[in-house]
Amino acid sequence: MIAEIVAVGSELVTGQALDTNSQWLSKALGELGVSVHFHTTIGDDLDENIEAFRIARNRADLVITSGGLGPTQDDLTRESLARLQGVALVENADCLAAISAMFARRNRSMPDRNKVQALIPEGADPLPNSCGTAPGVWMKTPERATFACLPGVPNELRAMFEEQVAPRLKGMGLGGRVIVHRKINLFGRGESDVEALALDLTARGRKPEVGITVSEATISFRIVSEGATEAEARDLMEPTAAIIYERFANLIVGEGTDDVVDALIHQLKRTDSTIAVAESCSGGLIAHSITSIPDVSPYFPGGVVSYSNRAKIDLLGVAPELLASHGAVSPEVAEAMAAGVREKFRSTIGLSITGIAGPKGGTAEKPVGLVYMGLATADGVESRRLDLGAEQPRDIIQRRSAKNAMNWARLRLQGVV
Amino acid sequence: MIAEIVAVGSELVTGQALDTNSQWLSKALGELGVSVHFHTTIGDDLDENIEAFRIARNRADLVITSGGLGPTQDDLTRESLARLQGVALVENADCLAAISAMFARRNRSMPDRNKVQALIPEGADPLPNSCGTAPGVWMKTPERATFACLPGVPNELRAMFEEQVAPRLKGMGLGGRVIVHRKINLFGRGESDVEALALDLTARGRKPEVGITVSEATISFRIVSEGATEAEARDLMEPTAAIIYERFANLIVGEGTDDVVDALIHQLKRTDSTIAVAESCSGGLIAHSITSIPDVSPYFPGGVVSYSNRAKIDLLGVAPELLASHGAVSPEVAEAMAAGVREKFRSTIGLSITGIAGPKGGTAEKPVGLVYMGLATADGVESRRLDLGAEQPRDIIQRRSAKNAMNWARLRLQGVV
Repeated sequence: MIAEIVAVGSELVTGQALDTNSQWLSKALGELGVSVHFHTTIGDDLDENIEAFRIARNRADLVITSGGLGPTQDDLTRESLARLQGVALVENADCLAAISAMFARRNRSMPDRNKVQALIPEGADPLPNSCGTAPGVWMKTPERATFACLPGVPNELRAMFEEQVAPRLKGMGLGGRVIVHRKINLFGRGESDVEALALDLTARGRKPEVGITVSEATISFRIVSEGATEAEARDLMEPTAAIIYERFANLIVGEGTDDVVDALIHQLKRTDSTIAVAESCSGGLIAHSITSIPDVSPYFPGGVVSYSNRAKIDLLGVAPELLASHGAVSPEVAEAMAAGVREKFRSTIGLSITGIAGPKGGTAEKPVGLVYMGLATADGVESRRLDLGAEQPRDIIQRRSAKNAMNWARLRLQGVV
Repeated sequence: MIAEIVAVGSELVTGQALDTNSQWLSKALGELGVSVHFHTTIGDDLDENIEAFRIARNRADLVITSGGLGPTQDDLTRESLARLQGVALVENADCLAAISAMFARRNRSMPDRNKVQALIPEGADPLPNSCGTAPGVWMKTPERATFACLPGVPNELRAMFEEQVAPRLKGMGLGGRVIVHRKINLFGRGESDVEALALDLTARGRKPEVGITVSEATISFRIVSEGATEAEARDLMEPTAAIIYERFANLIVGEGTDDVVDALIHQLKRTDSTIAVAESCSGGLIAHSITSIPDVSPYFPGGVVSYSNRAKIDLLGVAPELLASHGAVSPEVAEAMAAGVREKFRSTIGLSITGIAGPKGGTAEKPVGLVYMGLATADGVESRRLDLGAEQPRDIIQRRSAKNAMNWARLRLQGVV
């Protein structure tokens, strides 16, 4: 079963508002075993609505629309569907009673305009709205698709989907197959390198399907599996997940929303270690990433954002001569910062970053994107260089350097580097 | 001129990721006077891509696609466009050289797979990518639409739109009305309070149109104005903006993307002051916010993330007795942290935060959401209490407390509090 989601609203196509309903509906349908192939967004224009509904009707088995069910003149979903199917709009007595009752409960009289919300295309069923005035519409077409028209207000849409649409889909026997997703996240190699090692997995037509996506240098394998039950769908993806774990081993930082910081904290807990951070160009981003996770205080005493040279000297004990002879962005200063913060916070690991995040401040010798990371442990202190690219924006350089530094510490705690 | 935006990616239609590119592009096109009528989202399927491109080609003058330009097997935009137009994909020497150079700058060798990114449909022009490897595609069709294919990575897409697409669109001599948006941002009052003071501005049918949105406790007035030229549209919104500035005065932190941190930095520059921060529950978020802005080093020597009590004592000079008698989350400790960080960094202002971000760690006396902020200047030190709500998630408490603290410092520098 193929589904299309059609979001209606001029505020969406003009970019004044962000459509989050389509994403929510896609996830909810996927969990029921319905595969969404298309999202379409259109403005409040009758002809364009009818045309979009026509395209959807012919390429999908299920069309879910959001929005356009309100009482105002630019709410066109009811009329568009009726015109497309060549039927009249008829007043539904139950809907009218429900809308009146909703106003009565709020101690308001029903404005005349709200009566149009009780109009339903002939041959369609109304979908009761438990959170607002606009009833939805459920309509089978002789062509291909069944339409479910839902309100655009997110909480009304979600309630109507769960209370009215999901049971109908299950009743149609469409929910027989279950689709399950799994996302395994890697960090430390380029996307094309990773893909070259996984061409067998990502080949078109393979079951279960495997895709690769990249977000902030974290590469994700997304496995999509289908089965008669959730357990079966999960079992079917197990061998594929096992291949990924075997092949990418230490690159893997976690699943789902887990990223490098989660893997670092996992390793700190596993080894009962603490980490302190000295940040120059990343400006507190590592500390913020770590403290965004609850209950890390036993593993994270804190950090210093040493943005000025003075702060590197006063708070981290970096020798002024080192700064004078090598500059703040140098392996020597990165190492002194890491060793200094480890000592000040009495932590197992001291981690540091110093670099040029740009957009200004780069030179031929030390361009924007040049970053040194320092790692201090009981065994001594080391540094590493990153070249993140002078063309990269400041926030990318900051986030990429923070991630690389955390990943280095994570791998050290794992005993890999 | 009618435009359609086509977002490509299975992670989008399945709901695993949220498409924000289409909204951004719609806004950017609106500012150029191009009216977006359709958004379409499709997965990584060749036939469906070709069909969606065909529909778009016939109903829009401009089709902007995002995504599907990467080096992997499921990147199908180049091939889809070539097949739709019945032309071959040919290797573009300039693109290949640019991709190789990008890898060389990062001291990496180019994987073979990335060569496919230099393939361009015959008769199309490549669009250089200043932030990544994937070149875009600009292709006029004999049917109706001109295609602009952009990468899916948001910062690459935005840079390519501004550097390559916008100039070409202007060169095409876009006629018609220009729509201009202006966004004025406030912080420090509740949304309903602000709304109650602006009912005359937000009334339906008013020209120019004014809407209120809220994001992370920053309230924005969005003015939308239309004119024959950009200058005319801007002139028409001027009186409305003047009313907002008069009525909300010191609550206003800036326009566009400007928020509390930008207002703080503006005041630091204006008064030639420096600020140092001592962060406990906000965990580096203030430092990260400040250092996300370029060129702040003259005004921000740095900060301490004093997550443990030990760090508060060792790095900020907080008296152990204070911690023992009042606890880390207390006005006394907030003040000692602010005074301590000001002294350590020799800054004009010392700003501190200590609180309970949750979800655990709250008590009846000191619930989750209780935060104390400290502000130290040459005139002395003060503290303020925030009750952000025990039901709020951790990230909201962290962000809300960081914003409130920065806003306090901003108002102090303005001489308002």
